Amino acid sequence: MIRSSSIHDNERAARGSTLPWPQVRGSLKLDAAGLIPAIAQQHDTGEVLMMAWMNLEAIDETLATGRVCYYSRSRSRLWRKGETSGQVQHLREMRIDCDGDTLLLLVEQKGPACHTGRASCFYNRIDGDVVEVVSDPLIDPDKLYEGRGDT
Amino acid sequence: MIRSSSIHDNERAARGSTLPWPQVRGSLKLDAAGLIPAIAQQHDTGEVLMMAWMNLEAIDETLATGRVCYYSRSRSRLWRKGETSGQVQHLREMRIDCDGDTLLLLVEQKGPACHTGRASCFYNRIDGDVVEVVSDPLIDPDKLYEGRGDT
Repeated sequence: MIRSSSIHDNERAARGSTLPWPQVRGSLKLDAAGLIPAIAQQHDTGEVLMMAWMNLEAIDETLATGRVCYYSRSRSRLWRKGETSGQVQHLREMRIDCDGDTLLLLVEQKGPACHTGRASCFYNRIDGDVVEVVSDPLIDPDKLYEGRGDT
Repeated sequence: MIRSSSIHDNERAARGSTLPWPQVRGSLKLDAAGLIPAIAQQHDTGEVLMMAWMNLEAIDETLATGRVCYYSRSRSRLWRKGETSGQVQHLREMRIDCDGDTLLLLVEQKGPACHTGRASCFYNRIDGDVVEVVSDPLIDPDKLYEGRGDT
């Protein structure tokens, strides 16, 4: 019997050990809609930019092109980050977590990641009984879009 | 008519602007199970440690105690990170993204975040047609647990 690899086979493996990606890809834990959360982190500063969703097609395209492609749940289609705003993300590295249910993308983000024009989507801090804005836009969001859409 | 605040009211607000947390809390976009993804990042190094899920009760407890509490989907109950392994997370800051559907936790992680004994759960890198282990455990995972469980 040929046993298929899953990401769990790496749990006790030493650094440098490898598993075949096509088999691990087939064992990723997708949700009921076929999606997996993907965290985008700026590769050099470590800033967490955003979290979005990918399906297998988005993962494949991102790995093939080096340009990050998500799956837009609101528009029910692939969403090439920056297709409207021009603020594209270039992939430096894609990582998978221990359980195969979350991705971490180390990216080079061109301009702001957030549709509000801010570098990161995580600009709201809970501080006691208020939520405080902790960063200002890099770019006027009106200049990012004609109309509105995903970033 | 009294209008309730949502996180979207901060989109065009300047740094330092605030909204009442109790109202924003009520407008968070939870999934069908009442959960929201929460990314844990080591506050000083910027390392992304893990992604897990919270419900409103877990958010409230985490803010009240300063010790990170998630909701375990596999065990269907609150999961105080480190309750089995001792590898607790102390909250430094909780952030909300622009759409109110993801949390970022800046934390002080005691020991490894990952149940494999590694600092981060994101130790698998996709490299061409293989998935490579890129870090070794800080602690033998057998020493983290009696039996097995969430970290």
